[in-house]
Amino acid sequence: MEEAIRETCLRARAAARRLAVVPADRKNAWLRRVAKALGDSKGVILGASSADVDAAKKSGLSDALIDRLALDEKRIDAIAKGVLEIAEAKDPIGELIEKTVRPNGLAVRRVRVPLGVIAMVYEARPNVTVEAAALAVKAGNAVILRGGSDAQRTNDALLAILARTLEAEQLPREAVQGLPHPSRDAIRVLVRQEGLIDLAIPRGGEALVRFVAEHARVPVVQHFKGVCHMFVDEGTDLDMAVRIVTNAKLSRPAVCNALECLLVHEKEAERLLPPIVRALETGGCTIRRDEAAWGVEFLDKILAVRIVSGLDEAIAHVARYGSGHTEAILTPNAQNAARWRNEVDCACVVVNASTRFHDGGELGLGAEIGIATSRLHWRGPMGLESLTTMKWIVDGEGQIRS
Amino acid sequence: MEEAIRETCLRARAAARRLAVVPADRKNAWLRRVAKALGDSKGVILGASSADVDAAKKSGLSDALIDRLALDEKRIDAIAKGVLEIAEAKDPIGELIEKTVRPNGLAVRRVRVPLGVIAMVYEARPNVTVEAAALAVKAGNAVILRGGSDAQRTNDALLAILARTLEAEQLPREAVQGLPHPSRDAIRVLVRQEGLIDLAIPRGGEALVRFVAEHARVPVVQHFKGVCHMFVDEGTDLDMAVRIVTNAKLSRPAVCNALECLLVHEKEAERLLPPIVRALETGGCTIRRDEAAWGVEFLDKILAVRIVSGLDEAIAHVARYGSGHTEAILTPNAQNAARWRNEVDCACVVVNASTRFHDGGELGLGAEIGIATSRLHWRGPMGLESLTTMKWIVDGEGQIRS
Repeated sequence: MEEAIRETCLRARAAARRLAVVPADRKNAWLRRVAKALGDSKGVILGASSADVDAAKKSGLSDALIDRLALDEKRIDAIAKGVLEIAEAKDPIGELIEKTVRPNGLAVRRVRVPLGVIAMVYEARPNVTVEAAALAVKAGNAVILRGGSDAQRTNDALLAILARTLEAEQLPREAVQGLPHPSRDAIRVLVRQEGLIDLAIPRGGEALVRFVAEHARVPVVQHFKGVCHMFVDEGTDLDMAVRIVTNAKLSRPAVCNALECLLVHEKEAERLLPPIVRALETGGCTIRRDEAAWGVEFLDKILAVRIVSGLDEAIAHVARYGSGHTEAILTPNAQNAARWRNEVDCACVVVNASTRFHDGGELGLGAEIGIATSRLHWRGPMGLESLTTMKWIVDGEGQIRS
Repeated sequence: MEEAIRETCLRARAAARRLAVVPADRKNAWLRRVAKALGDSKGVILGASSADVDAAKKSGLSDALIDRLALDEKRIDAIAKGVLEIAEAKDPIGELIEKTVRPNGLAVRRVRVPLGVIAMVYEARPNVTVEAAALAVKAGNAVILRGGSDAQRTNDALLAILARTLEAEQLPREAVQGLPHPSRDAIRVLVRQEGLIDLAIPRGGEALVRFVAEHARVPVVQHFKGVCHMFVDEGTDLDMAVRIVTNAKLSRPAVCNALECLLVHEKEAERLLPPIVRALETGGCTIRRDEAAWGVEFLDKILAVRIVSGLDEAIAHVARYGSGHTEAILTPNAQNAARWRNEVDCACVVVNASTRFHDGGELGLGAEIGIATSRLHWRGPMGLESLTTMKWIVDGEGQIRS
């Protein structure tokens, strides 16, 4: 197994070297071909998907997980549409980050180049297979994909389409490969391939992310849990508070940017809290006011609520219990908003809006490969730019260093 | 020991939280105070330095290493001047990277924020103690420093000045701390403090860098060796070739951006190589034309030389034997220069100039904490910007996600 994984990585490395110098129009032609092939191959994909769903039902997977796993025609169309959007997006490779001319006449540029080989380890949703491949290749990278075992047949069908279309466009078919073994052990071997893998991205449940982080010898950008807070400050408009809190909690409780803990200014507990709680309970939400609920990612219709003495206590609570994902304040007070933006340390701070906006599409990035809660390299929604690195280019006319 | 190191990290984390919101003028005031204190404390520093030098002589350290270790008045002045330059540099914190307004009216900004806590593990030169502390704190970070044991007394004297001046400016004195134990074991414990250390930077010999990379559980930006090449293409001007090659090899052979391997186009071997070799040998350089010399970082007056059939073979040689540091081409041919810039993968490609320009000061960054050969987060000279991360700020007026 180790040998097979190493071979996969070596092929990816060679493909990455070739892809790094492929111009945008050829990568975009591939993406358009992928979109078309997805439409043309619906029968095969749906067949694989229903086989996966049947097996999942037999093995007793929950309905929620089966729903994430299953593809239908509409979902395939949505994946194809996403790929076309990536084709339309600006190619980040070659982009000039900075240019200066030194006193000795040297022209110094910093430009964007591909990262190299990316290992993507993820769970249930098979759409990630296509999205991750499309984003990685558009940014000039090779990618090794290891999806959830429940989606194995669907992922294999999608990987076959991706490889076939790469070949048809005379791009290296090893630019997108599946991990040759499905076991956890294989993941461990994969994320220890120093020098062959440039970045590992685990995306999924906390156990998976921790497993990769613990065993990796290659750099990891983590997608950890979202224990997102919202502080409702003194003087917040009641209607706005009800509207935003219910949206943040209930519009999609199972995702990482959903609200998990509401902090309410003590002076407003009487005016604001009862109608907020009423609206949440009407939406089927359970309120938990005990300390044990702090810092928990429920991913469900459950919300922790705490009364705080004011902004300082809210900031301290978030520093202690937050997960560095998304932290919001609702306030009419510009000074308090400024302190929140400045003093709360997380990937995305939000003022007077729903936590649910922390998302690549909503923030204007287009497709994303996930939301990074790491601090190094990238933080927040990972679009094309996050899959690049830089190179310095120095152009001279015979200069030497004195 | 583990407990003491953990306590050091916890104090650094608390200091980082406070430093993150300190405005530029207060950080700059501290830097100016450090520069002044270095001048005022020359007696103490020189006393510590000569004790280190005496001990090093007794333990049989080489003259070259003792020279790197030793401080004199002039070197202290140079360190102080470097600190003043960092005080003059633009504060990267709060810098707007990108701003967009979404169709729903949300204002989305990406701004620069500090990384957090940096662990710097380095060798001989005690100037790194002050430079790393100055850069880290200016970028709003706390730093834990672990210098070479040969420079222990000098580093302790410098650390005392740094802590005292932080206190005098009412900044957290734990923003700059030494590692409480000097052993390799202590380094291992340090670089495993997940959640407390945001970035480890090893800088020094290959053994040290590998040790940190192997044991780290926190993110590492590596400063690996520089096996730098220069390809002399067909038609290169003779005078320019002699001038640049001798500068790249001989101006400072022991540093990472010094030339280690010269590749010469076969059509020019007769015209260019003899005068280049003559000039190098006059400068005391030994030429090695055997295969065993490829890929070696000599850090000495030794140069590997290979005749290649042209640009393709030169690019292939660099891909195989280069270390991703600095790769140069000398050529009058614009197309070949363009291919070199595009196809050679390393931190810095150089056209028609010396490899020695790959340096923070020379490229216009000011002081640097080292040169990164990693791909993730940062590549090339690490100045203030490399010690930051980003934060997304979303400002709304009551928006919810539909």
